[in-house]
Amino acid sequence: MAERYPGGMHQTIAAGLTELLGDSAVVRAVTQDQPEHGLPDEVLATTDVLTWWGHATHAAVDDAVVDHLHQRVLGGMGLLVLHSAHFSKIFRRLMGTTCSLAWRNSGDTELIWSVNPSHPITAGVPQPIVINEHEMYGEFFDIPAPDELIFISAFSSGEVFRSGCCWRRGKGKVFYFSPGDQEYPVYHHPGIKRVLANAVLWARPEHSADFSAHAVINQPAPRFNRPGIAEGVGA
Amino acid sequence: MAERYPGGMHQTIAAGLTELLGDSAVVRAVTQDQPEHGLPDEVLATTDVLTWWGHATHAAVDDAVVDHLHQRVLGGMGLLVLHSAHFSKIFRRLMGTTCSLAWRNSGDTELIWSVNPSHPITAGVPQPIVINEHEMYGEFFDIPAPDELIFISAFSSGEVFRSGCCWRRGKGKVFYFSPGDQEYPVYHHPGIKRVLANAVLWARPEHSADFSAHAVINQPAPRFNRPGIAEGVGA
Amino acid sequence: MAERYPGGMHQTIAAGLTELLGDSAVVRAVTQDQPEHGLPDEVLATTDVLTWWGHATHAAVDDAVVDHLHQRVLGGMGLLVLHSAHFSKIFRRLMGTTCSLAWRNSGDTELIWSVNPSHPITAGVPQPIVINEHEMYGEFFDIPAPDELIFISAFSSGEVFRSGCCWRRGKGKVFYFSPGDQEYPVYHHPGIKRVLANAVLWARPEHSADFSAHAVINQPAPRFNRPGIAEGVGA
Amino acid sequence: MAERYPGGMHQTIAAGLTELLGDSAVVRAVTQDQPEHGLPDEVLATTDVLTWWGHATHAAVDDAVVDHLHQRVLGGMGLLVLHSAHFSKIFRRLMGTTCSLAWRNSGDTELIWSVNPSHPITAGVPQPIVINEHEMYGEFFDIPAPDELIFISAFSSGEVFRSGCCWRRGKGKVFYFSPGDQEYPVYHHPGIKRVLANAVLWARPEHSADFSAHAVINQPAPRFNRPGIAEGVGA
Repeated sequence: MAERYPGGMHQTIAAGLTELLGDSAVVRAVTQDQPEHGLPDEVLATTDVLTWWGHATHAAVDDAVVDHLHQRVLGGMGLLVLHSAHFSKIFRRLMGTTCSLAWRNSGDTELIWSVNPSHPITAGVPQPIVINEHEMYGEFFDIPAPDELIFISAFSSGEVFRSGCCWRRGKGKVFYFSPGDQEYPVYHHPGIKRVLANAVLWARPEHSADFSAHAVINQPAPRFNRPGIAEGVGA
Repeated sequence: MAERYPGGMHQTIAAGLTELLGDSAVVRAVTQDQPEHGLPDEVLATTDVLTWWGHATHAAVDDAVVDHLHQRVLGGMGLLVLHSAHFSKIFRRLMGTTCSLAWRNSGDTELIWSVNPSHPITAGVPQPIVINEHEMYGEFFDIPAPDELIFISAFSSGEVFRSGCCWRRGKGKVFYFSPGDQEYPVYHHPGIKRVLANAVLWARPEHSADFSAHAVINQPAPRFNRPGIAEGVGA
Repeated sequence: MAERYPGGMHQTIAAGLTELLGDSAVVRAVTQDQPEHGLPDEVLATTDVLTWWGHATHAAVDDAVVDHLHQRVLGGMGLLVLHSAHFSKIFRRLMGTTCSLAWRNSGDTELIWSVNPSHPITAGVPQPIVINEHEMYGEFFDIPAPDELIFISAFSSGEVFRSGCCWRRGKGKVFYFSPGDQEYPVYHHPGIKRVLANAVLWARPEHSADFSAHAVINQPAPRFNRPGIAEGVGA
Repeated sequence: MAERYPGGMHQTIAAGLTELLGDSAVVRAVTQDQPEHGLPDEVLATTDVLTWWGHATHAAVDDAVVDHLHQRVLGGMGLLVLHSAHFSKIFRRLMGTTCSLAWRNSGDTELIWSVNPSHPITAGVPQPIVINEHEMYGEFFDIPAPDELIFISAFSSGEVFRSGCCWRRGKGKVFYFSPGDQEYPVYHHPGIKRVLANAVLWARPEHSADFSAHAVINQPAPRFNRPGIAEGVGA
């Protein structure tokens, strides 16, 4: 991995976003071994879209950080979930399912096809994206039906996979994108970088800048009981 | 509540199902104060569809029971979530959102309209179901977009609510149905009883009787690599 | 084609349904060259689910028959749309889109994967269905997002295709299933026969046996204006 | 109507868009009585989003114009369908259903509730929008399940209606919004004007500026058949 990503995979992902989004995005990279996994309040409070990659050490992620992340997504922060992060605590909590899948690491060619070619996440993306060698992720992928299905991958071994999926959860938008195994230089691929940059733009908070999650409210005064409305209607 | 439901609300719900489903269903009722909330292995293992009502004491529900329930739903057990159980641990875990809503208890009339009149849950159900007095549940209801929206309620105070919603999670089917506040005799209503009976039939496991949740698999032999297939294609 | 389907493809499809559904289904086969394409009133009026295969001569299908079919589907008749019938008048009318796709006839292997393994259409269906040689249908398939996505196909040439898709239209259910090119003996395949039989059962009318399409109604008396309801609420 | 909309309803709608969108939008208004209903090639070819209101004279709309509109929407033009245009030829063609509904003109109060409060169409829109008097549109509304449900209306007479619905068709986006009966000054309402302006922004073509609809393609060379890929995989 050090060979493919000398500064760490996170630096490559960050550099790809900066390359394509320029001054319109401030990109920061943090790692799991930092305190609070690099996501203390002051960082989360100033993050519009969070990109999450994880592998093997999901169980070591602090539940308090996950709680915080969860509230933040429900409050409007965008979340990009990458590759093996299908098993991350935050993704499983947002989905409510096992998020299981089929896999095999045998250097298959992966072709990523758009099934939603006018969706903003596919802008400027080749049809298909060709990844010469990659780990196979296959169906059945145990997720809730996506609100929008964007990409389906084919593997030279014969499998298919819903590799790009969108959901809204609370006020936040979630995009799962399966490419990105650590044994292949996937995040250097121009098509993959384009998808990530597009997805960051798509996942930005729409307009509810307070980032508080929806709360139960004891709704005040009703609106139909002004004199004359209800009893006279349709008479 | 003892007045409206002398044997307990659970007995009224159970009696309604038995009345409409007859011998085709074996109906059992359990309560939160039983050991394991009445849901030990041998009960869950022989339950096709579970109906869950809860209020105020959600936090007292044992996490181990919720874990078990969750696995069971993902494995194919149907789940009907009733009224204030929108805040139950099991529903929030399956949805991944806050499941918050607006409410007010002021005896509003509720009209329940089908927006999916050929769906099996609406068979034999009047359009609309009229509940003369009920607690108001209103939007915004913070749930994932339902896979199928079945009912929308109007309240005489002016609110609306997505009162009947279907989702698939794993192999299981989930139906949320909002009527059923303990201060009103809602579960005696013929239209409500019909919806519950229909929903039990709808939520039955389809065909995967093993009830194991989907698991990650290291997929064996690929299928495209027989000689001659790939290199000769399109020639 | 006479070699693969000596009695005609329609007879093979019909025989497959009879084999799997037995006495529970009365199966009839008609062809385009019959008067009214074999679909006069008395036939349509006694059909619960119609299976439609067509190729090359879509334009010759009588618009009056299509009008009748359309009303019938909106009234509750199930419709299975097979292979090249993606370009049939009835399917395009129900979808509202071009229903275009990518294709190539070069004997590719097709693997049909379920992405909805607890759906009734997938009961008893192998994962994947393997068709050794078939015409390729690929994305982008210009359809409305399916209400339920059931199957995705992979082709040995690298393409993918949403090959099994469900929609509700009016009171009727529509299932598109892409296998079935006339140059390959696809409808003799046990897995394909199983899907068709399952889909017939799934597409049956639910409960609105009148088969009339929804009509605009000038809704009578409102329901909230009984004395005391509206003006007293929330007081 | 001349009293409520002295320059015509179309001028009020256009003025509302100009007021809120400013220089970012060039707004034009045309009417049915113009040649080609004011929509010749040079107009459609330079229109990103079309707003359509119609009533009573749907049948008089030229099928050739509808064909042209349909192709244009499938090619990426946004379409806003207003009020009684649920029965317009273009909307019914895009939906594939009867688009029937229940209605009654008895001056009911309408409350329009967002069920998707982080969707861009709801930005800056009050919860609910209150229309003191309006024609009632009620369920069942015979449309395909919306890709995104945005608004639900309550009427003081007790009905509900899915009053704001989004669909993608081809490359185009379609928004149906039910307020706007000619007997009430609805398009002067600030909340309604805000929804229309937001919807215009939402419905803009994403990035496929050629505006051609998707066409069937005989897909060229496959991508998996380079030497060594397929036969070696998984070995």
